[in-house]
Amino acid sequence: MTAAPISLAVDAMGGDYAPAVVLEGVTAALAADASLRVLLVGPSDVVTPFAAANDRVEAVVAGDVIGMDEHPANAVRSKPDSTIVVGCRLVKEGRAQGFLSAGNSGAVMAAATLVIGRIKGVSRPAIAAVLPTTTTPVVLLDVGANTDCKAEYLVQFALMGSAYARSVLGVPSPRVALLNNGEEPTKGSLLALEAHGLMAGTVEGFVGNIEGRDIPFGTADVVVTDGFTGNVVLKLMEGLSKALLGQFKAAMLSSPVNKVAAAVLRPSLESLRDRLDPETHGAAPLLGVNGLALIAHGTSGPRAISSALRVGAQAVRGGLVARITEAMG
Amino acid sequence: MTAAPISLAVDAMGGDYAPAVVLEGVTAALAADASLRVLLVGPSDVVTPFAAANDRVEAVVAGDVIGMDEHPANAVRSKPDSTIVVGCRLVKEGRAQGFLSAGNSGAVMAAATLVIGRIKGVSRPAIAAVLPTTTTPVVLLDVGANTDCKAEYLVQFALMGSAYARSVLGVPSPRVALLNNGEEPTKGSLLALEAHGLMAGTVEGFVGNIEGRDIPFGTADVVVTDGFTGNVVLKLMEGLSKALLGQFKAAMLSSPVNKVAAAVLRPSLESLRDRLDPETHGAAPLLGVNGLALIAHGTSGPRAISSALRVGAQAVRGGLVARITEAMG
Repeated sequence: MTAAPISLAVDAMGGDYAPAVVLEGVTAALAADASLRVLLVGPSDVVTPFAAANDRVEAVVAGDVIGMDEHPANAVRSKPDSTIVVGCRLVKEGRAQGFLSAGNSGAVMAAATLVIGRIKGVSRPAIAAVLPTTTTPVVLLDVGANTDCKAEYLVQFALMGSAYARSVLGVPSPRVALLNNGEEPTKGSLLALEAHGLMAGTVEGFVGNIEGRDIPFGTADVVVTDGFTGNVVLKLMEGLSKALLGQFKAAMLSSPVNKVAAAVLRPSLESLRDRLDPETHGAAPLLGVNGLALIAHGTSGPRAISSALRVGAQAVRGGLVARITEAMG
Repeated sequence: MTAAPISLAVDAMGGDYAPAVVLEGVTAALAADASLRVLLVGPSDVVTPFAAANDRVEAVVAGDVIGMDEHPANAVRSKPDSTIVVGCRLVKEGRAQGFLSAGNSGAVMAAATLVIGRIKGVSRPAIAAVLPTTTTPVVLLDVGANTDCKAEYLVQFALMGSAYARSVLGVPSPRVALLNNGEEPTKGSLLALEAHGLMAGTVEGFVGNIEGRDIPFGTADVVVTDGFTGNVVLKLMEGLSKALLGQFKAAMLSSPVNKVAAAVLRPSLESLRDRLDPETHGAAPLLGVNGLALIAHGTSGPRAISSALRVGAQAVRGGLVARITEAMG
């Protein structure tokens, strides 16, 4: 049985190492998934030869590029022929089932919201990150789309995050928690207190508050918070993992005897490092827009791009957008 | 030369393992610092025999105890003879130069604020945590006293945190940063944007915004945020460190050969673990009250209690309260 074909649009010019790294990631993704087709969006000299050399790649010429430092909304309005705007248009027109970019993430959000549009009932789309834990992965949202939130937004994030866990991660009944500064329902900021009250009545699988210390153990499948706190959490997890791995490495190489012992342990520790690697999930979906939009890190390597396309295909197969639409109905 | 004697009041009944662990910690602290005297606050049957057996311990009888789950402000009002209220009174009356409790932290905050009082110009006292990094320790505040903050509070936290870094950690010119979801001054929540504007003009050593990923590397000496975000950060750092160390340990013990190599590495890794241990700093000071109040974790062991008393003595010697008073003037 062959899986139904899936077409994803990819921004050839997105990210710090574009286009080389993007093309390398696309090649790997195509090799891994025979049902995947890619609409590669970028300048003709980049996309045309690549499409000519790859059966399942179609070139979509877009002459303009939005820089990493441009003002997102202004750039989206003033550059209708940019890779990001053209990529979103392919989704809107149904030519692609999703769009991936490692470029200016604010511009991807703005273009997806303006061009693809929001799902009915969604006040604010949110960026979700899938993080490794000691047990099962956790969906954390919002990680940066909305720095100031109302309690209703958090309820919507909960519903959207739960739909993501079901359709992409295959969790049948996701446990949804509110990130807070205490476990008791009476704890929290004004926002968290109000959100807790609303979520308790409306969110299936709501397990109440969790604290920062619980996140790394997979105590919940979905963790909901405002985009300010979520962004701090996401980046702190990246930074602290890096810092601790670095310290471990230094301790293990601090003497000749240690170095020998470290060499023995290397395979086990490398497999651990790979398991903890955020690149496994490759990209963060913007949930709440009426189509699939995936935002990859500007520093993404080929592995992250390839993982992102794999996750994108899972999201299409799992009916992510339809599930969110249903949850918001 | 002998250091000037320092008297600290200690809540004998604070914490999950009180009084045994508290007494053990006090004994260790007295052995380590010949200039330290302790006013031990608790029921007569606990404090009187301990004082009789220890030269530099004075028993202060307080018959009542505030439980870990009691409503802080109500308990402080209804239990004037509780160890926490009596301990704060000793500071207010000048009999002790500081008070340490591992009990109900909300009650310690409430009692310190009500009984000892705030320093002039301080709107809201804040809890500071000193965290290990790959380089120098960082003072993070607020970690939970104020879940909802105004921008002015954050400016005050910056001034108080800087005074702490100078007087207790010995940093001559602390670098003070605002925790935010981006480095640029134009990034952030409404609160962070307003705080950035105010801090830029008034806080000496202000280095601008830092992101979550920078905290573990000691990029700043003082990191300022609201008590909701700070609490999530503090607990996430605890949880993630624990999770990663656990995963490392499991990887290292995953085969007989690995176990042999792990045994070789043990001393280096244990010294690393000790260096990263949050118990090194033992307790979090409540900054902004007109006297020294130290809040220890409910799960504190003897080492944390002893470290907290050492830090308390440093704070007294460094003139912490006078420095904050001056900074707020």
